[in-house]
Amino acid sequence: MLNQVAPLDGVFQALADPNRRIMVERLARGPASVSELAKPLDMTLSAVVQHLAVLEASGLVRSQKTGRVRTCRIEPKALRSAEQWLGARRTIWERRLDRLGAYLAEQGD
Amino acid sequence: MLNQVAPLDGVFQALADPNRRIMVERLARGPASVSELAKPLDMTLSAVVQHLAVLEASGLVRSQKTGRVRTCRIEPKALRSAEQWLGARRTIWERRLDRLGAYLAEQGD
Repeated sequence: MLNQVAPLDGVFQALADPNRRIMVERLARGPASVSELAKPLDMTLSAVVQHLAVLEASGLVRSQKTGRVRTCRIEPKALRSAEQWLGARRTIWERRLDRLGAYLAEQGD
Repeated sequence: MLNQVAPLDGVFQALADPNRRIMVERLARGPASVSELAKPLDMTLSAVVQHLAVLEASGLVRSQKTGRVRTCRIEPKALRSAEQWLGARRTIWERRLDRLGAYLAEQGD
């Protein structure tokens, strides 16, 4: 259980920053170099590298250096794990509403 | 744009803590008092109240005091906004894969 939960801490933490979400958004459209990632962001390259490190530690992004260029890619598995956690909570909540609705309809008969 | 982004910071930040996720999980099953929320958690009631304040500030939970009991409820809208953000990123990524697959199939003909 703890093994399943721990990675979500890092994923949600990484997504809590608007600049990191812009980076994830860019990488969802395809791989990018660090300077391409930095383009729309109003920050130093060194700050971008720090955000990238948080994204990599969370498992949302991986990168590989070839020559002088580091290419970053999205890791869809981590995005999916967060989406699934939220979806499962929503399903539980919606089923509860359905049961409540059915109960109220029954009382109304 | 910024108005849309800012609430997500708080939602993802709130979900980055495993104890707060347990609280959200409990509230997805129905309203609960603070002491009911505290039951499965290995922490003081005062720590639970602090986590509850983070959840309320993020918009994920709201609470109301009646007499001496504070009842907490989930706010599905905030959960849904985070799920939708993740889902939209996944869709972009999957469409890109589809286009890539179509391109490679074309090259193979």
